[in-house]
Amino acid sequence: MVKQVIVVNNSLKLPKGKLAAQVAHAAVASLLRTESDLSNQWLREGMPKVVLKVDDEQALLALRERAAAAGVSAELIRDAGRTVVAAGTITCLGLGPAATETLTALTAEYKLL
Amino acid sequence: MVKQVIVVNNSLKLPKGKLAAQVAHAAVASLLRTESDLSNQWLREGMPKVVLKVDDEQALLALRERAAAAGVSAELIRDAGRTVVAAGTITCLGLGPAATETLTALTAEYKLL
Repeated sequence: MVKQVIVVNNSLKLPKGKLAAQVAHAAVASLLRTESDLSNQWLREGMPKVVLKVDDEQALLALRERAAAAGVSAELIRDAGRTVVAAGTITCLGLGPAATETLTALTAEYKLL
Repeated sequence: MVKQVIVVNNSLKLPKGKLAAQVAHAAVASLLRTESDLSNQWLREGMPKVVLKVDDEQALLALRERAAAAGVSAELIRDAGRTVVAAGTITCLGLGPAATETLTALTAEYKLL
């Protein structure tokens, strides 16, 4: 089984529509970084994804490093800053598709958004 | 310019994490239905997307038909029903990537989520 995990910078308290757009951005960006075997398996399995939260940008940067070390595709999303937050603010991190157990181990400490 | 529009069934009042996952699902599914010229242009332009809302499922079904008639890729997302809503409930509709003016004409009556 494979899944995607999108981890949101919850300190920003984004409006729900803005938040959803950022999560979608992370899902697409991380998918495009993933090798086709894993991507295709994830599509066949119905694109399972989970959205988690962290308290600050630093947690996302650290998690990105741990994901890269584990061979998991990871994409930090920075907002273009046209609307709600300052340009360059990291809004979320997309991980995978990757093996469910690998992602669960990387993100076990984080709660569902 | 091309963009994606994701339209949410706002009558469901989904929790924000669940909502974000459904919007991401729609973004990926509609992207995968889109011809590569448009998809590649959208990726080059930074994957612009907008999240709108409607009041009920019927509005999404009607919009899907209008989008199809306009040649815009469209994917209805039904929830698997494991958690918050009944299985098969339509949570959102992903449109495009498609020409910004085409999508704006199709969705001009709807408000930002």
